[in-house]
Amino acid sequence: MIVIALDPPSSSSAYEWIIERVAALSDIVQGFKIGLPAIIRLGASKVGKIFRNYSGLLIADLKLADIGDIMALSVEILHEHGFNAVIAHSFIGFSQGLDLLSAKCRELNIKLITVVSMSHSGSTEYIDRHIYEFLGIAQRVKSWGIIAPATRLEILRYIRRNLGNDIKILSPGVGVQGMEPGMALCNGADYEIIGRAITYSQNFREAAFGIIERQKRKVVECKKLQWSF
Amino acid sequence: MIVIALDPPSSSSAYEWIIERVAALSDIVQGFKIGLPAIIRLGASKVGKIFRNYSGLLIADLKLADIGDIMALSVEILHEHGFNAVIAHSFIGFSQGLDLLSAKCRELNIKLITVVSMSHSGSTEYIDRHIYEFLGIAQRVKSWGIIAPATRLEILRYIRRNLGNDIKILSPGVGVQGMEPGMALCNGADYEIIGRAITYSQNFREAAFGIIERQKRKVVECKKLQWSF
Repeated sequence: MIVIALDPPSSSSAYEWIIERVAALSDIVQGFKIGLPAIIRLGASKVGKIFRNYSGLLIADLKLADIGDIMALSVEILHEHGFNAVIAHSFIGFSQGLDLLSAKCRELNIKLITVVSMSHSGSTEYIDRHIYEFLGIAQRVKSWGIIAPATRLEILRYIRRNLGNDIKILSPGVGVQGMEPGMALCNGADYEIIGRAITYSQNFREAAFGIIERQKRKVVECKKLQWSF
Repeated sequence: MIVIALDPPSSSSAYEWIIERVAALSDIVQGFKIGLPAIIRLGASKVGKIFRNYSGLLIADLKLADIGDIMALSVEILHEHGFNAVIAHSFIGFSQGLDLLSAKCRELNIKLITVVSMSHSGSTEYIDRHIYEFLGIAQRVKSWGIIAPATRLEILRYIRRNLGNDIKILSPGVGVQGMEPGMALCNGADYEIIGRAITYSQNFREAAFGIIERQKRKVVECKKLQWSF
């Protein structure tokens, strides 16, 4: 399963850049994740327009990390424009933070996805020191999903082993960022988040099919090895 | 010194809501801080238009907390639309995080403001456990300013004592959030960030003058007591 990360470069017309990729990919991937830069460039309403007839996962990747009232207000705006999922940092804490956000998400039927680890090297400096606490927070706020990078396979396995199958795991870090397609799925992830390896290619659809094929082969290989976590 | 926090409620027309307040206040305060909800609602370009002829501090309060490339891309967009300062989280870490962001901020002459503590109660759960490390990161990335809440006066004094006078301290948490005007200034802050106590009042200008007056009285009082930090 693939979620496409859409981060148009500053040199492009963000609106057309996104439309081209969504048109080529929407029937073969499970969702799209729109980064903060595109949302502040276009505004939530213009992004929403692109996805007016789309029924898959539409994630606003704002990496919310503000006081609860401000995060809740942001989610109201996203909901109004058709987003159905949002990413927030666990780091912000529960009290007057994620508690208010998760209540708002439940009210509006928005999927809350919380970050427990990231794919850049700086994630080890502070964030990764709290991974296990962040998993506790994800359960406490009833996150629909968790972001954990494909480059940290032991964390994916830990989450799947300990949090059960109800919570979705979404893994960035596949492709250009280093991890081969399918490895995160083999280790417990539900979705691999893939950006440049598809969105910067010459032929988006061909690139996506290539990656789907590689995911399938890898998953078959894991099963043969009776991989378990 | 006052920075006005502009967070239009979802029931309002954000554009007019902001224009009314900026028109009433721009000559008597030192800057404006625009929250994430308004920026995603209007888009950076429309917010920038409101401040086309404004030369004070114009802070995009995105609480950036993403990988460095994405934060740098966000700052390019903000710069293009006239913002001259941005707020980012220290917890994202230095490597491939704040290092890339601060390089981009220097290149574009954008003031980087890093968060070391927040005003909501959840700040104590994770963020505040790293305050002193976050102060180290602020020095390492040469932050122009630091966000530390007026509700944590001992932290303001610590920062001022240990980081010298080159770095600006901006304090939210004044007014509706609990701390009386002037207290943060007495304890080392350069700017008090004030939102609802002014922006939700009947007469913005009168409310602002009232708060400026209270700040002045408080600062005189502190000096009389030979308050030192």
